[in-house]
Amino acid sequence: MEVSRRIVLAQRPSGAVDEKNVRLEEMPVPEPGPNQALGRVRFLSIDPTIRTWMNDAPGYLPPIGVGEVIRSSGIAEVISSNSDRYKVGDMLFGMTGWQDHVLIGGDAPDMQPLPPGVPPTLALSVFGVTGLTAYFGLIEIGRIKAGDTVVVSGAAGATGSVVGQIARIKGASTVVGIAGTAEKCAWLVDELGFDAAINYKLDNVPARLRETCPDGIDLYFDNVGGAILDACLGRLAKHGRVVLCGAISGYNDPAGPAPVKNYGNLIVRRGRMEGFIILDHLDQAARAQGEMVDWIAEGRIKHAEQVVDGLEHALDALTMLFTGGNTGKVIVRL
Amino acid sequence: MEVSRRIVLAQRPSGAVDEKNVRLEEMPVPEPGPNQALGRVRFLSIDPTIRTWMNDAPGYLPPIGVGEVIRSSGIAEVISSNSDRYKVGDMLFGMTGWQDHVLIGGDAPDMQPLPPGVPPTLALSVFGVTGLTAYFGLIEIGRIKAGDTVVVSGAAGATGSVVGQIARIKGASTVVGIAGTAEKCAWLVDELGFDAAINYKLDNVPARLRETCPDGIDLYFDNVGGAILDACLGRLAKHGRVVLCGAISGYNDPAGPAPVKNYGNLIVRRGRMEGFIILDHLDQAARAQGEMVDWIAEGRIKHAEQVVDGLEHALDALTMLFTGGNTGKVIVRL
Repeated sequence: MEVSRRIVLAQRPSGAVDEKNVRLEEMPVPEPGPNQALGRVRFLSIDPTIRTWMNDAPGYLPPIGVGEVIRSSGIAEVISSNSDRYKVGDMLFGMTGWQDHVLIGGDAPDMQPLPPGVPPTLALSVFGVTGLTAYFGLIEIGRIKAGDTVVVSGAAGATGSVVGQIARIKGASTVVGIAGTAEKCAWLVDELGFDAAINYKLDNVPARLRETCPDGIDLYFDNVGGAILDACLGRLAKHGRVVLCGAISGYNDPAGPAPVKNYGNLIVRRGRMEGFIILDHLDQAARAQGEMVDWIAEGRIKHAEQVVDGLEHALDALTMLFTGGNTGKVIVRL
Repeated sequence: MEVSRRIVLAQRPSGAVDEKNVRLEEMPVPEPGPNQALGRVRFLSIDPTIRTWMNDAPGYLPPIGVGEVIRSSGIAEVISSNSDRYKVGDMLFGMTGWQDHVLIGGDAPDMQPLPPGVPPTLALSVFGVTGLTAYFGLIEIGRIKAGDTVVVSGAAGATGSVVGQIARIKGASTVVGIAGTAEKCAWLVDELGFDAAINYKLDNVPARLRETCPDGIDLYFDNVGGAILDACLGRLAKHGRVVLCGAISGYNDPAGPAPVKNYGNLIVRRGRMEGFIILDHLDQAARAQGEMVDWIAEGRIKHAEQVVDGLEHALDALTMLFTGGNTGKVIVRL
C-alpha cells in the first residue's frame, strides 16, 4: 500500500510555531470518488497568512481545526481522474494543504488550471496570489498615481518586492523599501531599482523616512503593522493612503501587532487607511495577469524565490517568513 | 476712547488649558482701513479644534502664535465700513477670533454673509461648520447607505448629535451614540431618536457594542480617538468604514490620544479608516445646507446649544468641551 503523508495542526501555537504545533501523519493514498480527481501535490505556497489561520480567532477564513491538515495554497498534478473536468497530467492551482495528495472536485473543492506557459513556481509567486496582492493593493486600494512617493515594508518579501517594482512602472517618483538585513536592502536598490532601502533592525526608521521622503509618503503599503506602520502614519503626505495588506510583526504574538498612535495624522493629512483580502479580487485576476505578463517579459519585474525541498520541511519554510530568512517567495517542493 | 478687548495666547498649554495660558488685553477699537470694514463680534463658535491650534505642532492650520489672538470662527456685525462689499448692519461669518472687534476685508481676511433667514447661533451650529462636518463626514467620507449600523462618539456634542440624526434620515438601521453622562444618553435616545446610547464612563464599551451592534458596525464616526476608537475598530463589520473627525480624548494630552491596537481588523473586515478636514468641503456647503434646511424645518434634526455670555468666559466655554459639561453646540455671546 502506497503511503501518503500530511501535516496536521496538533495544537494551536500561542507564539512562534514550532514542532509541537504540527504532526506528520501517514495514511493510505486516497481514492478519488465519482466526478473527482486525485492530485499529487508538487508545490506549496508558503505565506504569512497561514500562521493567522492557526489561531482560534475569527478571521477572513475559519481557523484550521486541531487535527486538520494545515491549509495552504499550492499546485498539484492530476495522477488519476474520474472527472471530465480534470485529466491526468493537468497542473492545477488551489488549496492543496500541506499533504502529498489532494482530492479535487466532487465533494472536495475544485482547483484551477495554471495560466498557459507559466512555470509552476511563477504561478505561485509573481503570477499567483502574491503578485495579484501587490497589484490590487497598489492599484485598486492604494490608487497609485504618477509622482507618488511610495514606501513598502516587508520589501524583500514575495509581495513587497513586486509592490515596489509595480510602483516604479506606474510612475512613482520615489520608491523606498523597508527590510531587515543589509543584503536585502542592497538587493532592493541594486537589483530591483528601489531609490532607497531602510534596514529597520539597524536604522532609525522615522529619521530615515524623513530623509528619503522629504515631502511625506503618498502611499504606504504595509505588510508588517506595529512600529513601522506607526512611523509611516507619522510621515504621511496630504491625501496619503495606507494600504493594509498584512501585519506579520504581530502574527506570532497573542496580543497582535504593536498599537499605533499616529492615526490622528489621518485627520490632519486627510489620509485613508484601508485593508483588503486578495480573495475578494480574484475575479479580476485575468486582467491583472495580462498586464503583469508583459512587465515580466520586458524584465521590468524581477523576482526571487526560495525553494525548500520536502513536505517534512514545510514548517521550517513557514518559520523563515518570521525570522526574516527569506528573500522573495518561499515555496516548498514535494 | 472706546476700549476693545481681545484674548491672546499667553503661553502654550501642555495639558488642559487654564487661565495662565491666555491673557485678556485691552486696546483702542481699531479703525478700518481702505476697502475694509469693522465688525463687532457677536458670537464665537467654541470648537475642540481650537485646542489643537494652541500646540506648537504642524497641523492643518499653523499654530496660533504666542501673543496672538485665539483663533476662532464666529459672527460679527458690521459697525463701520469703507468697503463696497460690506454694509453697516451686515451679519457675517468667518474667523473672528476671541475679541470684541474684527477688521474685515482689505488686508484682513474676508467674511461671508449668513444664509438668509438663519438665526446667528444656528449659523454657527447646525447650519454652520458643525452641521457641515456631520454632513460631509457621514455622506462623503463615510458613504452612509440605507441599512447601515452607525455608531458615533461624542454623540451629545454639536457634531455627534447631528451625525446620528442624519444617519437616521439616510436610512441607517441602527444608530448608537456614545456619550459621558446618563442625561446625555437619555437625550440621545428620548429626544433625538437614537436606538441606543452607551455611557462610556460607566459601561463596558466593547460589551455594549456587541449588544447594540450584533452584526458589527458598518460606519463609525469618531470624534474622540483612543480606547473608544479601538473598541469600534474591534467591532467593525465587513467593509466597515471609520470616519476620523476628531480625537478630543487626546487634545489635552501632550502624548496625543491613546494608541489603538485593533487596526488589523481593517484587513480582516476589508475596512477603511479615513480622516477629513471640513475646510476642504466648504465649496460644497450650499448643496449640503440646501438639504439640511428642509430636515430642520421638518423637525427631523433637532439641536441643542449652550450659550455662554461674555468674551471673558470664552476659556470656560472651551473647557466645557473637555470636561463633558456641554450638550450640543457651545457658543459665546458677546
